[in-house]
Amino acid sequence: MPVKRIGEIALIEEIRKKFPQRRREILTSIGDDAMVFKNGLIVSTDSFVEGVHFDLRYFNFYQLGFRTMAGSVSDLAAMAAEPICALVSLYLPRSVRKRDVSQLYQGFKLLADRFRMDISGGDIVESPYWGVTLTVIGYTRKPLLRSTARPGDGLYVTNYLGLAETGRIVLQKGYPKNLFKCAIRRHLLPEPRVKEARVLIKYTSAGIDTSDGLSTDALHLADESGVKIVIDADSLPIHSELRGLLKYRRIDPVRFILSAGEDFEMLFTARRVPDFKSVKIFRIGRVDKGKGVWLEHSGKITPLKPTGFEHLK
Amino acid sequence: MPVKRIGEIALIEEIRKKFPQRRREILTSIGDDAMVFKNGLIVSTDSFVEGVHFDLRYFNFYQLGFRTMAGSVSDLAAMAAEPICALVSLYLPRSVRKRDVSQLYQGFKLLADRFRMDISGGDIVESPYWGVTLTVIGYTRKPLLRSTARPGDGLYVTNYLGLAETGRIVLQKGYPKNLFKCAIRRHLLPEPRVKEARVLIKYTSAGIDTSDGLSTDALHLADESGVKIVIDADSLPIHSELRGLLKYRRIDPVRFILSAGEDFEMLFTARRVPDFKSVKIFRIGRVDKGKGVWLEHSGKITPLKPTGFEHLK
Repeated sequence: MPVKRIGEIALIEEIRKKFPQRRREILTSIGDDAMVFKNGLIVSTDSFVEGVHFDLRYFNFYQLGFRTMAGSVSDLAAMAAEPICALVSLYLPRSVRKRDVSQLYQGFKLLADRFRMDISGGDIVESPYWGVTLTVIGYTRKPLLRSTARPGDGLYVTNYLGLAETGRIVLQKGYPKNLFKCAIRRHLLPEPRVKEARVLIKYTSAGIDTSDGLSTDALHLADESGVKIVIDADSLPIHSELRGLLKYRRIDPVRFILSAGEDFEMLFTARRVPDFKSVKIFRIGRVDKGKGVWLEHSGKITPLKPTGFEHLK
Repeated sequence: MPVKRIGEIALIEEIRKKFPQRRREILTSIGDDAMVFKNGLIVSTDSFVEGVHFDLRYFNFYQLGFRTMAGSVSDLAAMAAEPICALVSLYLPRSVRKRDVSQLYQGFKLLADRFRMDISGGDIVESPYWGVTLTVIGYTRKPLLRSTARPGDGLYVTNYLGLAETGRIVLQKGYPKNLFKCAIRRHLLPEPRVKEARVLIKYTSAGIDTSDGLSTDALHLADESGVKIVIDADSLPIHSELRGLLKYRRIDPVRFILSAGEDFEMLFTARRVPDFKSVKIFRIGRVDKGKGVWLEHSGKITPLKPTGFEHLK
């Protein structure tokens, strides 16, 4: 059977079944944002491929470096870990210019410096296309997991969702950039919520970063925790630039947010939340007994299928 | 400047200069086979690209899984670490079949089971071509480094060199397989020297795995240790199957061994060595004061340029 018929998620589930975990050094692994060692080290790996994850027509190499490192560090933020270092695996075409690679590393460095991370090696290989695989390592005494949401919790998100995808569409379609500054910035230079997550860990029961789209990310929480998550459509915050996109495209903003990925905000469950100066927090739903993700709209609750991006599907 | 003019090694050196290491958790990083945490964890990452590292015309997916995992685990062996787990990043074309991915994982598993390693997650992304990036994690209280060879040491290698490249050529050119069984096996299913390295650490001053070709691997030892390495051409062991290749191709066996990579044997410096039942050890040279790699042939010593495989060159 071709993999595109089953998709990435089913493939990972199948792999997980075949590889029971047996090392006593490891706390959790396949199924969460990153693997967790009992000594507190957290390791995550993420790949970005030209033409699939990024388009060199509107990403310069500096932005590409920042963007890929931000996406990887967001996996550490998702577990409320402090970043320590990154290993860089580059797939480079032979025609690549040295200046491009230098700019890519400058982008890595800007993000890494923000969190005092080291770039600790990796490898460089020839390839027909650009590809970047980043392995990031962090530390936390108490990891924030996907599997510990409890009925009765509220569902919260940092900041507005759907902005990164708005920015991607604006750049791809050539809509006026000056009307979508926040959205474009979120697509090219997203901010992983490392510092916020280190505070949130005191309040949250479970959490994840929003990388696959709200419906899919919420399903990860519901599945791993064995709970039902109800998203309140009427309380989803809609950013003015996402509303601005409506002038150019017929979209339903709620459906858009449910499937738009790569905002790298924190989606989490908690009884109460702190106030941040750096970012707003919105309550967008709740955790109930049951399973799956549901959408509540004008008092009516319907089951929600994950519509986020999935590779190989 | 196009990167192919400067090559992978100069590029990595340039990157190293721009990224001074500052995290106190980390002992060594860019420049060795893997990065080393002060708590003893070792992390290494390695990438394999279709058409560059492997050819799907004569690798089946099971062999590909075994081969790529063996190559990565060899980086842990190079530092005399005990393997713990691996993270798998797959670049898969949309057309890939589920059976191919299952067989690939069976190959990973066979090698991983041998050392009681876990497969602890990773990610799967769409890509125009096959690519595999493996991040392996191991543990050692005392890592074997490249930077600690001392004048007066002997230079040793486990087993014969040049066999994997012999196997690759035989498969690519379609020479009779039954005459080159060891060589083909070394190319498709190499054995990382994990167990031997754990014993060797008691004897060796410095070490590396032979992945880039003897001349390049020896140069890594010489450069990182600040010593001169003299390879004794007359004592290089030549396997009968490499001699067999002479019937089909005009090659100089010594030159061949100096540049042929991916044998994943241990190249190390020591005052004395133990006996192994599992593998032969050959003394092939010595460490002197000075720098660079030199070849001694019939009593004459000449400087040796690295001729091993280098990406982007």
